[in-house]
Amino acid sequence: MPTNRETSRVRVTVLVRIRDGVLDPQGEAVKQALKDMGHSTIEDVRIGKIVEVILPSGPGLPELAKEWCERLLANPVVERYEIASIDPL
Amino acid sequence: MPTNRETSRVRVTVLVRIRDGVLDPQGEAVKQALKDMGHSTIEDVRIGKIVEVILPSGPGLPELAKEWCERLLANPVVERYEIASIDPL
Repeated sequence: MPTNRETSRVRVTVLVRIRDGVLDPQGEAVKQALKDMGHSTIEDVRIGKIVEVILPSGPGLPELAKEWCERLLANPVVERYEIASIDPL
Repeated sequence: MPTNRETSRVRVTVLVRIRDGVLDPQGEAVKQALKDMGHSTIEDVRIGKIVEVILPSGPGLPELAKEWCERLLANPVVERYEIASIDPL
């Protein structure tokens, strides 16, 4: 009976943030809402995306994740990305 | 001349994710797009929010952040939150 070796999998975590200096309407809205809740000392709120991708482990994962970001996940004009972690599952 | 002591500030980072088992339409769309780009081995994609709040440092910040999450940032029915870090600026 051939042993069905379980392929090891990873979770690649990418953070995509709006570049400094670029207006963040969603962040502004949340800031105002928090102030309306009484949190008047809040100075700034920035909202970005956390993208978690599950796939089989393998070589070249950082380069792969970089391609995802540059071709799809992050708009280079107004966003910057960070490959935060690559963790085995 | 009274010295205008610069108030120390912090960045509170909160991650808001869709609960496991809850459909993530945005994640599904990105998964399909990545597969269309040729990344056929991708198994799952989940997309959440990273919220970064800048405010003066002070006592009780974790409890404050918890309140932001429970009253505004995370919908408890379909989302879970994590106060990832509180970093001095």
